[in-house]
Amino acid sequence: MTRTVAAPASTSALVDEVTRVAVSTVIFSLRRRPDDTCPTLVLPLVRRTRDPFEGDWALPGGWLDASESLDAAASRTLAETTGLMPSYLEQLYAFGDVDRSPTRVVSIVYWALLRPDEAIGAAAEENVAWFDAATLPRLAFDHNDIVEYALWRLRNKAGYSRIAHGLLADEFTLAELREVSEAILGRRLDPANFRRQAEGSGAITPTERFRTGSHRPARLYRYNQDVELADRGPLVIRH
Amino acid sequence: MTRTVAAPASTSALVDEVTRVAVSTVIFSLRRRPDDTCPTLVLPLVRRTRDPFEGDWALPGGWLDASESLDAAASRTLAETTGLMPSYLEQLYAFGDVDRSPTRVVSIVYWALLRPDEAIGAAAEENVAWFDAATLPRLAFDHNDIVEYALWRLRNKAGYSRIAHGLLADEFTLAELREVSEAILGRRLDPANFRRQAEGSGAITPTERFRTGSHRPARLYRYNQDVELADRGPLVIRH
Repeated sequence: MTRTVAAPASTSALVDEVTRVAVSTVIFSLRRRPDDTCPTLVLPLVRRTRDPFEGDWALPGGWLDASESLDAAASRTLAETTGLMPSYLEQLYAFGDVDRSPTRVVSIVYWALLRPDEAIGAAAEENVAWFDAATLPRLAFDHNDIVEYALWRLRNKAGYSRIAHGLLADEFTLAELREVSEAILGRRLDPANFRRQAEGSGAITPTERFRTGSHRPARLYRYNQDVELADRGPLVIRH
Repeated sequence: MTRTVAAPASTSALVDEVTRVAVSTVIFSLRRRPDDTCPTLVLPLVRRTRDPFEGDWALPGGWLDASESLDAAASRTLAETTGLMPSYLEQLYAFGDVDRSPTRVVSIVYWALLRPDEAIGAAAEENVAWFDAATLPRLAFDHNDIVEYALWRLRNKAGYSRIAHGLLADEFTLAELREVSEAILGRRLDPANFRRQAEGSGAITPTERFRTGSHRPARLYRYNQDVELADRGPLVIRH
């Protein structure tokens, strides 16, 4: 941005070499199938209705409009393609390999976690379906790589408070929090170790309420508001 | 990317609304002035030789070429403007506010830490100077905001091993590591607390060598190779 390198000699040269900017969004949520004891990490995909990759599934997204910010474009294109409107989208990474699309496209990818009750809207949209994150089909463009990267970031970054805030109701049992962590990590966790770590993290706080039912009463926890989304950082003022 | 929204009706419409992609890079290093006891966090800036913001200082960078990846563009434009060639650049964030430039430009920003001995090249380049990160002038575009965000990320992310690897020689004393941490955080740290935390982090390992000189001998440490740059993640295969 400080020096123009190999500037196009004319407008037509610019058109020949134009790089377009798109936004795509990875939305993770949880589904519990009737026959499953544990929830599964799922994400919504959109079936493409035009070339390239017509008929293939792809991440929700669209082109950046010249009059909107990246954040606004991510929210708009997600709503237009899936009907989903998460309260907060976080920028994940910009993907810009030369051969990731037949034309040159740089995709700014956003991501969000959605609680199961927030994830209902997308079901009604045409050409939208939820997929198990662990068993995706071959997606359009480099979208399998993008989902793989998002999963890696989720596994590395997601602390207890972020998971609880993003994927669980306001109050939850330690067993529910552990099941969510197991769905993200793709492996079982020892209940006693998990309890010790979660309670010691400072990210969740116990309430005086209990969940009762067929099992013995289980204490309900809340996430600690003090540490919620602490890694948004100074950019939060832009939203 | 999955649906074309408000697609340009013709090529000329595309030219009118074209969004261009640039890359910029924030390079942090350390300088110890002759009269200072502690090192200071510094970064190289390039004086702009054309409009917009002619004469102002800006982050090194340039336009994305249609035939190169984002990573390659970041390395190339940094080398062309400053002569610096860090072994590893990490993508930081994409900045795309509508009014950040007179024309519509999305900047993919990279960052890197540079050891003092690696930072020498830039001094010889025309229109390049190193600035104290804490006392920058008013920069071109939104580059003050970008540096502020990079500093915030550095303060939050930089663990002991990353700091040691990025800003110190292969072997260093705990006092040197503490001084670097103080430069990044912008405040003094208690030596005893710092020693305990650094040794307990697992990110650095003691050697059997000592630094001798005017003070009493101080043990030399190395960063722990096992945790080095662990947050590169699966994208490392792309480099």
